[in-house]
Amino acid sequence: MSVNRHYDREFVRTFFTSPTAVEGENDSAKMLRSAAKLRGLEAPDVWVPDNEDATAPSMRAEGIDNIIEVVAEHGSDFPGEIHPRVVWHREDPTTRYRGFQQMLRVAESDAINHVDGFVIPEVGDVDDWKKADEFFTIVEHEAGLEPGSLSMSVIVESGEAELAMGDLRAEMGKPANNLERLFLLVDGEVDYTKDMRAMTPTGELPAWPELRHNTSRGAAAAGLIAVDGPYDDIRDVEGYRERMTENRAKGMTGIWSLTPGQVVEANKAPLPPKTGRWLVEAGGRDVELEARDGKQVYEGSELGLEVTGDREYHLRVGDDEYVLDEPELEEELLDLTAYVPSLDDIVDSMEEFEAAKAAGRGAIAMSRSATLVIDGVEVEITADRMWDEATYQAAGTPIALFQDVYEHRPDQHEALAEMYGRDLIERAVAVGE
Amino acid sequence: MSVNRHYDREFVRTFFTSPTAVEGENDSAKMLRSAAKLRGLEAPDVWVPDNEDATAPSMRAEGIDNIIEVVAEHGSDFPGEIHPRVVWHREDPTTRYRGFQQMLRVAESDAINHVDGFVIPEVGDVDDWKKADEFFTIVEHEAGLEPGSLSMSVIVESGEAELAMGDLRAEMGKPANNLERLFLLVDGEVDYTKDMRAMTPTGELPAWPELRHNTSRGAAAAGLIAVDGPYDDIRDVEGYRERMTENRAKGMTGIWSLTPGQVVEANKAPLPPKTGRWLVEAGGRDVELEARDGKQVYEGSELGLEVTGDREYHLRVGDDEYVLDEPELEEELLDLTAYVPSLDDIVDSMEEFEAAKAAGRGAIAMSRSATLVIDGVEVEITADRMWDEATYQAAGTPIALFQDVYEHRPDQHEALAEMYGRDLIERAVAVGE
Amino acid sequence: MSVNRHYDREFVRTFFTSPTAVEGENDSAKMLRSAAKLRGLEAPDVWVPDNEDATAPSMRAEGIDNIIEVVAEHGSDFPGEIHPRVVWHREDPTTRYRGFQQMLRVAESDAINHVDGFVIPEVGDVDDWKKADEFFTIVEHEAGLEPGSLSMSVIVESGEAELAMGDLRAEMGKPANNLERLFLLVDGEVDYTKDMRAMTPTGELPAWPELRHNTSRGAAAAGLIAVDGPYDDIRDVEGYRERMTENRAKGMTGIWSLTPGQVVEANKAPLPPKTGRWLVEAGGRDVELEARDGKQVYEGSELGLEVTGDREYHLRVGDDEYVLDEPELEEELLDLTAYVPSLDDIVDSMEEFEAAKAAGRGAIAMSRSATLVIDGVEVEITADRMWDEATYQAAGTPIALFQDVYEHRPDQHEALAEMYGRDLIERAVAVGE
Repeated sequence: MSVNRHYDREFVRTFFTSPTAVEGENDSAKMLRSAAKLRGLEAPDVWVPDNEDATAPSMRAEGIDNIIEVVAEHGSDFPGEIHPRVVWHREDPTTRYRGFQQMLRVAESDAINHVDGFVIPEVGDVDDWKKADEFFTIVEHEAGLEPGSLSMSVIVESGEAELAMGDLRAEMGKPANNLERLFLLVDGEVDYTKDMRAMTPTGELPAWPELRHNTSRGAAAAGLIAVDGPYDDIRDVEGYRERMTENRAKGMTGIWSLTPGQVVEANKAPLPPKTGRWLVEAGGRDVELEARDGKQVYEGSELGLEVTGDREYHLRVGDDEYVLDEPELEEELLDLTAYVPSLDDIVDSMEEFEAAKAAGRGAIAMSRSATLVIDGVEVEITADRMWDEATYQAAGTPIALFQDVYEHRPDQHEALAEMYGRDLIERAVAVGE
Repeated sequence: MSVNRHYDREFVRTFFTSPTAVEGENDSAKMLRSAAKLRGLEAPDVWVPDNEDATAPSMRAEGIDNIIEVVAEHGSDFPGEIHPRVVWHREDPTTRYRGFQQMLRVAESDAINHVDGFVIPEVGDVDDWKKADEFFTIVEHEAGLEPGSLSMSVIVESGEAELAMGDLRAEMGKPANNLERLFLLVDGEVDYTKDMRAMTPTGELPAWPELRHNTSRGAAAAGLIAVDGPYDDIRDVEGYRERMTENRAKGMTGIWSLTPGQVVEANKAPLPPKTGRWLVEAGGRDVELEARDGKQVYEGSELGLEVTGDREYHLRVGDDEYVLDEPELEEELLDLTAYVPSLDDIVDSMEEFEAAKAAGRGAIAMSRSATLVIDGVEVEITADRMWDEATYQAAGTPIALFQDVYEHRPDQHEALAEMYGRDLIERAVAVGE
Repeated sequence: MSVNRHYDREFVRTFFTSPTAVEGENDSAKMLRSAAKLRGLEAPDVWVPDNEDATAPSMRAEGIDNIIEVVAEHGSDFPGEIHPRVVWHREDPTTRYRGFQQMLRVAESDAINHVDGFVIPEVGDVDDWKKADEFFTIVEHEAGLEPGSLSMSVIVESGEAELAMGDLRAEMGKPANNLERLFLLVDGEVDYTKDMRAMTPTGELPAWPELRHNTSRGAAAAGLIAVDGPYDDIRDVEGYRERMTENRAKGMTGIWSLTPGQVVEANKAPLPPKTGRWLVEAGGRDVELEARDGKQVYEGSELGLEVTGDREYHLRVGDDEYVLDEPELEEELLDLTAYVPSLDDIVDSMEEFEAAKAAGRGAIAMSRSATLVIDGVEVEITADRMWDEATYQAAGTPIALFQDVYEHRPDQHEALAEMYGRDLIERAVAVGE
């Protein structure tokens, strides 16, 4: 993307790394070149030509050459931001000096016109972050760039870096640094696991919920964006989606992508679905009901329902059995069910609340009805939810994300139009303004 | 409650908010007035006339008038503490100035004789807390109150406020502030979710376990009291109780209540039960056994038990099958079961340990036996637990809470007597002194 | 163990406490004496003659005499480190002064030649840790020991101590203290629960996942070792193992042991198994497959498999049913299964990667195949995993632990040889050097 030195994205969904130089290929920049041509849902919000772990140490000098060449050629057309990753280590001054020189070489080339910032891995205490920041400042000076124009993202992969995120907000305000250039806080769970000396029986990575919380909180407190680390099992699309759902519940909207296939998944995951759906809690997990002829049908065996008399029902939930009249049955089923609203539903609710507010009402009830079918027995349920200003604001997060994507990713307009239809998109872009 | 300027409660179970002024009613103070008349289990430990989110912005001037009027009239008879919430925002000086003036108006009225403190929402860094603290100091000065006599509670609903709780202990000791007036740390998960930009598919709030831990820890370290935020689904009593059980395991004893019904639940939840009960782990969750003729009967299908020979048993736990002799069976069942002690049980054990200690013994075994019945087969089990000083101290937390409630809430004596009987109450009040 | 004043262990698996003086025995030092004679898997990495909670207050003077006598006599032959626990309390200067004198008495006796350090319980803020540190410095001075030669371990059992762990890394660098002597950060959940005023229905301790994370992170950031607190239910070996598995996933390798039986379990738990095994996810948990004739057999009822046509399969996972062709079936089963590698497997993989690296390749695929049997139907699956430098490093943690144990615990060589065979041990000691 042609550089807009003051980034204004509010959200980053995707952080996609490409090796900068692969040995044994005719063209060692092949993977960079193919990544540079990605468009639409396959193109990430942030593209990271990766001159660190994804590239063999012996290839990293060539990697910088490749970045310079490929980004100069394709950068202006690339739809996302471009943030090469250079080498760095909190415990090794030689590595830090190399990282500085890698940034300097890129900054003194034409490629810099399309580079939004750099990614610094393996940072330590906040004092270590400041060393990197100072190198950015020198690089900007040497290359004649405006001070603070290059943004800095870090990979959090040590206990001390995790702790540093608690101090960022205070440190960024100090006049002796330029840490305002910070952009992404990215978790790097592989090296973090090594640094923490953690072990699991299967060698699988621990889930590190506290790290992700602390990253998300650090980002929220300092006005930055939190991104989760790589999901290694590329074939496991379902697992990748579950991880992203968990992350969003922590306020971490972005995730690393290792392949264009993962980019597509991660670009789509935080967008509200085209169609709403009902869930029911059965056997300890949420099961999607099947929409059939406008009714919501449960087909598992964890729930059972029978009419046992005049307006009397026998409900079975796992091992528990209940005899209920109609209002009791409806109440019980309301507790077991939940609705996942579509983009259309969210826009509807927000418009309705905006209209109510304009008419001087601060809180309104939103209703949603469905016909559930369990063992052939049909039951009508109606869920009410009070909406007030706070509900409205919270509901606004997916819409803010949608609008941010729409503004910054014109190359995805077509895909969005196919997913949602143009009318809905127009309403979603206009609501909440 | 007539003001005791140096609050001495150790526990707050309930934090009940009421709108200060409702539009379209004959009497806009109607909800304040009915809340002020609550007594016994329906009356909260802390009552919060809420001049912020629960009251429409256009009604907040009138809201202060209502607080002044209603609290002056009913405050002296109210059995809990009274802490109005005023407006505040870490990012908006106008809002902060309004909050200051709201406090000043209350403090210059007669109502102040019954007001224990104020609740400040939307705080940020600890420096922001200090601004509020300074306004309290000025208000006290202007109203001729003793310095430090008004207590300050905050709503934690941003990443920076969460971080600030890590510094409180050190900051409260500094001579240039009066932060010793701090009282409650209250989580506000709706706005926190917005601040963290978190999203869930159904729009339900994330559980935020780390926030609740950090709030509870911040309270423990600084001698304050931790309170969880509102539980929106008012009809879901079971869910509210589960949330409170989770909270207490985190050291967070208090919770927000939105209705008198929730107040009753939250006032009762942390008190030990009248009757002990046995639990058994079956199908991944704890199931209560049914007490029948002094025996504990399991009625689900996850466990199965058969006598297969002379003192030989066949035990089924879900998919796993075991052939066991009698001692092995008892051991297996001991591992699967747990006992929830009643108030009577706890007092008994403490008295027994106190007697042993007086006789020079530092540790004693406490036994508890039961007859389990699974598929009609009866098995006797006896659980032993060593009690030492630490066990005794830890067991003391629910008793300390009980005694705190008994001391500060005479209006609940009758309800407690009905629940437990007067004899037990006398023993519970005397134990551990 | 004869003292090596600059400890060089990287891991501590076991922290075993013994009462220093038991009333009513002929020999009040009986338990100290028997603990001092433990060897091999029954001997802990760190032995803690416990002159605090395990010993009645009235016996603690005699306890110090016993430490002095027993450690002088048996210390030189003890295979682990020796760290007596003295009394301390963040809120009580008298207790702190007593702890100081207890250390001084030990340091002025011959026992000090075998004492590696002391354990300080009930610490508070980092300033409180510094008071203890200063007492160590005085004790070293009075006893003519080299400054910094005694290591200091703390029990974290308060909110403020938990917070202090976030500052250790910065505080340890300050010239005015000797906090570099810090060694173990040990969680003390019983008193922590009391300090946090947490309650559970059954009186069981809360799991405190955030505390354990913060302890592990504090240790990682400051170069210390994290140890979990006591597991009270001594008979529950399975529960103790599960707790340790959880802990290792948090980077907390060590755990408290209350009996030699627990020491054996905790010494063995972090070592890779002798034999690898396959797991399958069924009914929400990981179930071990039974190896039979080189095949992996599932015997539960949560999964079902049938051949329904030519290369067509019907797979049931709980309530969900799938019709799949062979590649789809293999993919589905790969997602459900996982492999727990043996020590042999890990050494193999590391050797293979080292050879590839020597040949100039930075990443290689490791394959693992198995024949699964479900309802009599056999399916071949092959899991591929990419190994790069980071995978190699992460896999190295259990090997680093194994090598650390092998280096520092010659008394366990025989037990290790019985478990793994001498050939494998030689390879495990050599790999990764």
